[in-house]
Amino acid sequence: MKRSYAAEVFQNDLKKVLVRGWVHNINCIGRIAFVQLRDKTGIIQIVTNDATVRDLRLEMSIEATGEKVINDNAPSGAEIHADSIRILGRAYYDMLPFGINRGRIRASLETQLDHRTISLRPPKMRAIFKVQQEIEQAFRNYLYDKGFSQIHTPKIISSSTEGGSEMFTVDFFGRRAFLAQSPQFYKQMMVGAGFERVFEIAPAYRAELHNTWRHLSEYVSMDVEMGFIDSADDLMDLEEGFINYLLKHLKSACKTELEMYGASLPEKAEIPRIPLREAQEILLEKYGKKSPSGGIDAEGEKLFSDYVKQTYGSDFVFLTGYPVSKRPMYTMPDPADPDLTQSFDLIYKGLEITTGGQRIHDYEMLRQNIIKFGLDPESFSFYLNSFRYGMPPHGGFAIGLERLTMKVLDLANIREATLFPRDLKRLEP
Amino acid sequence: MKRSYAAEVFQNDLKKVLVRGWVHNINCIGRIAFVQLRDKTGIIQIVTNDATVRDLRLEMSIEATGEKVINDNAPSGAEIHADSIRILGRAYYDMLPFGINRGRIRASLETQLDHRTISLRPPKMRAIFKVQQEIEQAFRNYLYDKGFSQIHTPKIISSSTEGGSEMFTVDFFGRRAFLAQSPQFYKQMMVGAGFERVFEIAPAYRAELHNTWRHLSEYVSMDVEMGFIDSADDLMDLEEGFINYLLKHLKSACKTELEMYGASLPEKAEIPRIPLREAQEILLEKYGKKSPSGGIDAEGEKLFSDYVKQTYGSDFVFLTGYPVSKRPMYTMPDPADPDLTQSFDLIYKGLEITTGGQRIHDYEMLRQNIIKFGLDPESFSFYLNSFRYGMPPHGGFAIGLERLTMKVLDLANIREATLFPRDLKRLEP
Repeated sequence: MKRSYAAEVFQNDLKKVLVRGWVHNINCIGRIAFVQLRDKTGIIQIVTNDATVRDLRLEMSIEATGEKVINDNAPSGAEIHADSIRILGRAYYDMLPFGINRGRIRASLETQLDHRTISLRPPKMRAIFKVQQEIEQAFRNYLYDKGFSQIHTPKIISSSTEGGSEMFTVDFFGRRAFLAQSPQFYKQMMVGAGFERVFEIAPAYRAELHNTWRHLSEYVSMDVEMGFIDSADDLMDLEEGFINYLLKHLKSACKTELEMYGASLPEKAEIPRIPLREAQEILLEKYGKKSPSGGIDAEGEKLFSDYVKQTYGSDFVFLTGYPVSKRPMYTMPDPADPDLTQSFDLIYKGLEITTGGQRIHDYEMLRQNIIKFGLDPESFSFYLNSFRYGMPPHGGFAIGLERLTMKVLDLANIREATLFPRDLKRLEP
Repeated sequence: MKRSYAAEVFQNDLKKVLVRGWVHNINCIGRIAFVQLRDKTGIIQIVTNDATVRDLRLEMSIEATGEKVINDNAPSGAEIHADSIRILGRAYYDMLPFGINRGRIRASLETQLDHRTISLRPPKMRAIFKVQQEIEQAFRNYLYDKGFSQIHTPKIISSSTEGGSEMFTVDFFGRRAFLAQSPQFYKQMMVGAGFERVFEIAPAYRAELHNTWRHLSEYVSMDVEMGFIDSADDLMDLEEGFINYLLKHLKSACKTELEMYGASLPEKAEIPRIPLREAQEILLEKYGKKSPSGGIDAEGEKLFSDYVKQTYGSDFVFLTGYPVSKRPMYTMPDPADPDLTQSFDLIYKGLEITTGGQRIHDYEMLRQNIIKFGLDPESFSFYLNSFRYGMPPHGGFAIGLERLTMKVLDLANIREATLFPRDLKRLEP
């Protein structure tokens, strides 16, 4: 007999059904047992007097076959009067690490992360990753529509991209290598290799020596790079287009999941583009908040997001015109002000989710800039040399997948949006 | 003016067009220059007497605007009589590393890999990655249709999955960690975490101490894991379904690219499932070919593929029933023969592209098997403990993306199907 999923049973036209899943709950009234069976689609009630029930424990995986009976009082509108129950996966525990069948899990996030196989079982937990999957899917579909190609570039690399620190080192056949902080060099090279428009969705690594609610040592970076652009505005147009595509997509693909988290998304995002300097002034004037030179800190991001929300009604804001000193050596300077760059961040509900900008595409200009930054062109030769052959004007950006997921659902900690987080303290599970 | 792509110019209804791309070739006849402009969609001819032409060099990136003229003799059916040409990206070379505008590149694969930004520019080279992208897209769409969820699991891990050797070590905040050879443990755990059916497309790492035409140190693994299966046949059914979906998809999505490589794909794949022992006997009887104990070697794979092609008319064959001693400790033994496992390889045109099988799902059986393999259950505790809570019967497989691409297009070396390969000798570009 073909398996039916819990969510299908009510609708399908089978009289006898076979279901599989985990024991979510058990109640016995006399010799009749009511078993709530949970599978990836939902929960269905099994009513049975099969003797096997006496051996059941919470979270065992089982199979039940029986007659479908429509019952308005059952959680999914139908229940199964099972004549047979079979145990598929046994339980080996004295006590579950925490209960998962009574709403919110009463355990710290750390404990939940220690027991991921259990903590992800409640539908509300899995919903986070449904949203994450659809964010990624929207990103991919939006870019395919715009003629982008998906690429895969190496994560084991020979030199640092963004500056030397905060990289994990790898022993690569006796050579010292690094885990890529981003596919920066490679996505640029692929633009130059004739692909023109590329994106990559892949792990990126930051060996940051602090544990915060918004940092991971290993995360998923959604990277874009686009050739033949006129200015950084082309990139912000592209990203704004994506955000609008995403909002629409999530509302239709993740209606249930958004409701579970009470997440409301705006109909449309018209994203203001505000120079960093102006943002710093506003923070000082309106909030008495001083900003560090050439940036705004986490508190500033939050305050400025509030300001933008009040002033423009937008959850998103592009901060533009970061100073040369605060951006990597490949960033295109602003022709109107050589101290500034053609770069931007995207802040979403008080959190930076994107860094992007136009890159230098002229070989000689890039070489000079590498020297100006106190770096040695020799150590970037494989990258620099690829600029010798008519590299077109280009730029791009990257979105942290977990950060975007976290903000869409208003989660408190980025680890909630990560199946198996890696951080300063966590290498397992 | 909005940019037109080379392939669109002939069809669109603009009189005046703006194109951007690379200088593929230049011919001057008197004061008239014929410039072949190449972009990601194709090549279009520019006819001009703009003085800028004198500064042009091969592979510079340029912009041209002018009148569109239908010309049957022009490569794309139309040419552009340009009144202005603008250089977007300059050239800084004495000589190109190799010519790319006269058909086949006359340089060794190693030289081509050293200059990836140039060697990928010919349309035929980029076609490989169009096929690769569509393979991945077919994999994803096929699995979404079957209710699978896409997951991201960590590549920095604390212990080895497949046995201790051949792993790259990472310094993880002073702790010794490894780069994952596969998402094996994590995809199994995600099945157990209630996702039931998962897939992942992500880098995998093998520190193999040999350089061959079919091995990479970093490759893209397309991994599947499925819960609530009855046997390994469910997995082979799933993969056979994918292969058929893929063949159909590639024929429509990559018609041009397949033609470029003279690649012909079968209409339909009915994949024979042949026990390894039987394959070994056939190799010995028909070809006098001895096989190593519990497997067949690379030459055997080739010979046996020939046999299958002749006998069954199939490019694909599943080899089943690998012995316990040749499979990892998590592999489900065959209930009918405890020396064998419920596992399989998929061979495509003489090359193994998949390893898969049913896994042990019972906690106690897995613990005993770890001990039987001479390993310490303690060092797998995060994995083993996740089997305490009703792990359902499950299994999966993995397909090497580059290997499949290589075989679809009959490429000679896996590095041709990799943008930036990593191997024993290559860490750059």
